[in-house]
Amino acid sequence: MANNEVILLDFWPSMFGMRLRIALAEKEISYEYREEDLRNKSPLLLQMNPIHKKIPVLIHNGKPICESLIGVEYIEEVWKDKSPLLPSDPYDRAQARFWADYIDKKVYDSARKIWSTKGEEQEAAKKDFIEIFKVLEGALGDKPYFGGDNFGFVDIALVGFYSWFYAYETYGNFSIEAECPKIVAWGKRCMQRDSVAKSLPDQHKDMG
Amino acid sequence: MANNEVILLDFWPSMFGMRLRIALAEKEISYEYREEDLRNKSPLLLQMNPIHKKIPVLIHNGKPICESLIGVEYIEEVWKDKSPLLPSDPYDRAQARFWADYIDKKVYDSARKIWSTKGEEQEAAKKDFIEIFKVLEGALGDKPYFGGDNFGFVDIALVGFYSWFYAYETYGNFSIEAECPKIVAWGKRCMQRDSVAKSLPDQHKDMG
Repeated sequence: MANNEVILLDFWPSMFGMRLRIALAEKEISYEYREEDLRNKSPLLLQMNPIHKKIPVLIHNGKPICESLIGVEYIEEVWKDKSPLLPSDPYDRAQARFWADYIDKKVYDSARKIWSTKGEEQEAAKKDFIEIFKVLEGALGDKPYFGGDNFGFVDIALVGFYSWFYAYETYGNFSIEAECPKIVAWGKRCMQRDSVAKSLPDQHKDMG
Repeated sequence: MANNEVILLDFWPSMFGMRLRIALAEKEISYEYREEDLRNKSPLLLQMNPIHKKIPVLIHNGKPICESLIGVEYIEEVWKDKSPLLPSDPYDRAQARFWADYIDKKVYDSARKIWSTKGEEQEAAKKDFIEIFKVLEGALGDKPYFGGDNFGFVDIALVGFYSWFYAYETYGNFSIEAECPKIVAWGKRCMQRDSVAKSLPDQHKDMG
């Protein structure tokens, strides 16, 4: 155990932190969860992530891994025998990385604008958000998970946003399910997994 | 050979395209280079990268891999026996991915603003650019390459920008070498490699 001390510096509503929580749960790795106060960041967080000063940070045997997708890949590579998160075929791996990268480049900004702006800017953000999720629906197709029959990397990259859907719908006054029913069905399917259910907050918990 | 048809859709001044050219050269993979006209993109480009519609696209046996760092990882995984580009240790791999991600998140935007803006905005971009490269100098330290003694993933991610240094200096009227001498020495060192020298245009070629 002394060789596998794992600490997660996190903040409970973070969809990026949720990625690491899910990956750790999928691999059945026990770890110490440390909640950060983002208005008063801990000296440990500033020491472990001096470049971005952001959560989540995974700390494995004293060494930090920053940026959530890089952390998920790290978990996959270190604990490779249990519950593979990425396919073994290089082309399929590249496709999984492509969609996770698409999520990082597109989803967060449009989603944030739904609750942080008003009027025309908010309407534009909702339109972007729906377009982005329609593209993601196209990538999902009729598969149960983005990884096919197996829950994996892209599912982990995206599902944290699902825990925010109620907040987006409330602030934006729209129905995501009416626009993207397959994505909502996928979110519900993911929530049936223990690793996801225990890593995501209830959608109705106050995100403030 | 029929099983290894490799095509690169690219545009010569692209620092992202340069990454794939260098990785292919390091692995000694022969490929067909196709120059794109970005004002009149080919049907093949639009078909192969319908999501982003951007170069570079690596096409391997008819299947596209988009996003340059994902392409470099793909090349590494498919042609794994020749010239490893990533370290084998998972922590070192995570560190390499962290710095490549830092480059993608930080360098391009500040660099672009040096030649595309003027006045205060340009001065702010130059200040950002120097700060970012000082952070990268810190990561390089006294090693010959970001990967240590071996040229690798982070070097590939960054060195394409080096081919633009003369343009940045000319537009911004400043000396990168005066601010970041270790980075310039590193760029010169990289240029001594055949894989880099033949993949990067001359700094003094008109980038317009």
